[in-house]
Amino acid sequence: MRKSAADRFRHLFNRSLILLRHRHHHHPFPSSSSLSPFSRSRFFSSTPFSMASDSPFPVTAQNINPKVLKCEYAVRGEVVTLAQNLQKDLQANPGSHPFDEILYCNIGNPQSLGQQPITFFREVLALCDHPAILDKSETQGLFSTDAIQRAWQIVDQIPGRATGAYSHSQGVKGLRDTIAAGIEERDGFPANPDDIFMTDGASPAVHNMMQLLIRSENDGILCPIPQYPLYSASIDLHGGFLVPYYLDEATGWGLEIPELKKQLEAAKSKGINVRALVVINPGNPTGQVLGEENQRDIVEFCKQEGLVLLADEVYQENVYVPEKKFHSFKKVSRSMGYGENDITLVSFQSVSKGYHGECGKRGGYMEVTGFSAEVREQIYKVASVNLCSNISGQILASLVMSPPKVGDESYESFNAEKENILESLARRAKTLEDAFNKLEGVTCNKAEGAMYLFPQIRLSQKAIKAAGDANTAPDNFYCKRLLNATGVVVVPGSGFGQVPGTWHFRCTILPPEEKIPAIVTRLTEFHEKFMDEFRD
Amino acid sequence: MRKSAADRFRHLFNRSLILLRHRHHHHPFPSSSSLSPFSRSRFFSSTPFSMASDSPFPVTAQNINPKVLKCEYAVRGEVVTLAQNLQKDLQANPGSHPFDEILYCNIGNPQSLGQQPITFFREVLALCDHPAILDKSETQGLFSTDAIQRAWQIVDQIPGRATGAYSHSQGVKGLRDTIAAGIEERDGFPANPDDIFMTDGASPAVHNMMQLLIRSENDGILCPIPQYPLYSASIDLHGGFLVPYYLDEATGWGLEIPELKKQLEAAKSKGINVRALVVINPGNPTGQVLGEENQRDIVEFCKQEGLVLLADEVYQENVYVPEKKFHSFKKVSRSMGYGENDITLVSFQSVSKGYHGECGKRGGYMEVTGFSAEVREQIYKVASVNLCSNISGQILASLVMSPPKVGDESYESFNAEKENILESLARRAKTLEDAFNKLEGVTCNKAEGAMYLFPQIRLSQKAIKAAGDANTAPDNFYCKRLLNATGVVVVPGSGFGQVPGTWHFRCTILPPEEKIPAIVTRLTEFHEKFMDEFRD
Repeated sequence: MRKSAADRFRHLFNRSLILLRHRHHHHPFPSSSSLSPFSRSRFFSSTPFSMASDSPFPVTAQNINPKVLKCEYAVRGEVVTLAQNLQKDLQANPGSHPFDEILYCNIGNPQSLGQQPITFFREVLALCDHPAILDKSETQGLFSTDAIQRAWQIVDQIPGRATGAYSHSQGVKGLRDTIAAGIEERDGFPANPDDIFMTDGASPAVHNMMQLLIRSENDGILCPIPQYPLYSASIDLHGGFLVPYYLDEATGWGLEIPELKKQLEAAKSKGINVRALVVINPGNPTGQVLGEENQRDIVEFCKQEGLVLLADEVYQENVYVPEKKFHSFKKVSRSMGYGENDITLVSFQSVSKGYHGECGKRGGYMEVTGFSAEVREQIYKVASVNLCSNISGQILASLVMSPPKVGDESYESFNAEKENILESLARRAKTLEDAFNKLEGVTCNKAEGAMYLFPQIRLSQKAIKAAGDANTAPDNFYCKRLLNATGVVVVPGSGFGQVPGTWHFRCTILPPEEKIPAIVTRLTEFHEKFMDEFRD
Repeated sequence: MRKSAADRFRHLFNRSLILLRHRHHHHPFPSSSSLSPFSRSRFFSSTPFSMASDSPFPVTAQNINPKVLKCEYAVRGEVVTLAQNLQKDLQANPGSHPFDEILYCNIGNPQSLGQQPITFFREVLALCDHPAILDKSETQGLFSTDAIQRAWQIVDQIPGRATGAYSHSQGVKGLRDTIAAGIEERDGFPANPDDIFMTDGASPAVHNMMQLLIRSENDGILCPIPQYPLYSASIDLHGGFLVPYYLDEATGWGLEIPELKKQLEAAKSKGINVRALVVINPGNPTGQVLGEENQRDIVEFCKQEGLVLLADEVYQENVYVPEKKFHSFKKVSRSMGYGENDITLVSFQSVSKGYHGECGKRGGYMEVTGFSAEVREQIYKVASVNLCSNISGQILASLVMSPPKVGDESYESFNAEKENILESLARRAKTLEDAFNKLEGVTCNKAEGAMYLFPQIRLSQKAIKAAGDANTAPDNFYCKRLLNATGVVVVPGSGFGQVPGTWHFRCTILPPEEKIPAIVTRLTEFHEKFMDEFRD
């Protein structure tokens, strides 16, 4: 493994930044230079504009918002489209490929791969959807007593018991009270329900913040590289500037303050107003869990530099190693003595992750602290334009932050479901990590948390040339080959950003545990053949 | 009533447009000129920036995105905030005001005012939330047979029966099939499930389209005045230019083609690229239902001018007069012989309106036709960044487009619930319309559809002066007085736009029917006193 990727590529960053700016000012597409962290596959694929000039349609790719053209979201990009076509082909012609099913390891979507929902959560949601059955006798036989109690409590928290009404723009006040209490219990510091803005998953919350902060392409947002491409997409859509900071692969994707400072200064010297720092903890796609000391340094950095700390904490329940623990940035800040007026901090949370993985419910919230009343009014106003997030998602967010407790009727079964899932995820992460590390030319850091592994593949010159001949990026080339040979869908590293000249892919740890051995065998066989085929 | 407001104010439009452009280029706030359709109350209220210069926070109203500052959403604006404070005051000090409760007539939120959800829809939603009970015997006693059948069918349509998974970015394919079949049945013309993009309510769909079409402040969107302020807010947030066209109050809020042409030409002559026409049918806040002949002319206008037709059809079930019928713009276009390649049309639908009013579920879709494959790919990509809309909302959208049919076990009770609600809404609309028309200086067009009345109030010079002295717009002044006297919350017309120099407010028809007589009495008493107090 490389000693310090961040050091080694220090000299490249300035050029990289210049190239990024250049594309911002003149090109709808990112630079193809290998010095940019985003050597995106899109650049190599055939342009979609061939039919545009004589288009019968008033809207063409030439006259839509160039920010839309520019944004990219690789998690559902080209490889996934190929996979969907393969799946249709498999259904139409069974046996036509060397695998029976497509395994979608491209996206953190646990229930799509067979993970079962948490019973207590679903009981409460069903009862809140149809409160008319709450006092029927048959209901006692179908639902646990504490689920019925909780549903009553929630329905009573909704003004007029109107579960089908728009709520307050920030979400139902009673549910925000529950969430704030859950945050207090987690952190040991006060939380204010008026700081909670409930959203349809975490993605709209991230967009809200980017929309608030970005005024022009001269406004920069510090983002980790590799990053979850929601951030690059959202920055592109809002016309801002992504200021990359590199996580150090050699130290387990370490987030180093000198690297932050260097990139901040470099951006400033180019005239970029850096407004915020995005930290994803536990890391996506990188799986690291930050240490508390490191987090203190990050808070201090934001405080000193006047940056908003945008803390993506959606994987807070997903920690798999005993030596690491999740600490929210709010807790860390408050434990340093920094209060509401000292640090501007937004924490994103989602019901899609954790042990429950309720992606389809689109629940989430942001806890917004350290903003003036006048700015908070603006955040509220923008939330109001979309009226409110969905109530089922709001209810689920309150459940996630206030699950059954010791002594509750459902507690034991709830806890068993939860622990089974988390322990299985930990085993799957370890098995896949070990398997990747056994492959020739592959190194893979531990997934301490989150739902992903991000192995580095060292590709031969011959493979890189073959990718070039196929008009695609080397990591994309590898991932497409992998898909065609095994049915396993992973996302090329270029969709997340990577140190220029290195190649990775992101693979979720979510396939059902019983399928993991077969997947490892298939991956290994494919990789050996690939390496042999393209040996220099 | 004025003979033709559109004609009378023709000469004012050019100045109005210039003023609008001027504020776009230089001011975060709209012009205060009475010639602008948006004489927004905000302009008059005290600036929120007093504490900004010595702010301890890195984010201030001076350094956020000016597009955020500029946007306004009056439906949850100043009057509503006042109402929420009054409500708290009422709870703390019962009897402290001349009314017992706040009646929120500011927003089309039926269930918040006591409307009950449709049983069949809620049964299916509850069963899909907790499919584990689908085959339990107790379930038979609690749920109707066809709700159980429908839930099985829906769960089977979801890949892997994973009701908690992210779906396809456009929504679950099987649910889109159901919606497309519902559109076909409604229109008598084919609908393609691949044209359906499911969204969390209609609002995100509108944002998606504005984001796609608006490149700069020189891109214009033709919007009705008065309009639903989602449109002005979304255009502001995406940095575009609202090109107003006036609905003719004298002809029942008629949408006249010469007015469209005039405004389009005026905008073009100022260098605005007009990209789309927004039509809200049935109208919000105006309640008119367009005639089919009129719709044909609108389609022809868009076809000739190369405009995207953005058809807000969320009130398609809400038509209250026998002489009018809802026709979708898709049906009208197809019946004119215009196919997929002839007209670019987006239809917005929502589960929040209709007879069900399931606002809190945040379900909806847009049907996107007449876009090239390349542009559709871009729409898909942006949808992908947010992963998918919430599955409960998706399910509900499929139910709304495919409710129980004659012969189904639930049909009779379903239909009774539906007809009761629609008939009651029609009676409430008529009662309130009549009451408004009896008030001195007030005229009110019929609510043929949707959920609102938009009466015009002719205010005295003395009242207008009093408003100016109170630093607020005259309609805002009236609405605040009304709230303080009666507890009834309505939205000032300036939030929707109105012919300069005229004053209106929007009032929903949603208060419970048994409360309407008392509301009418309170409104009438207030109005008489107000007119007497400010008689010139």
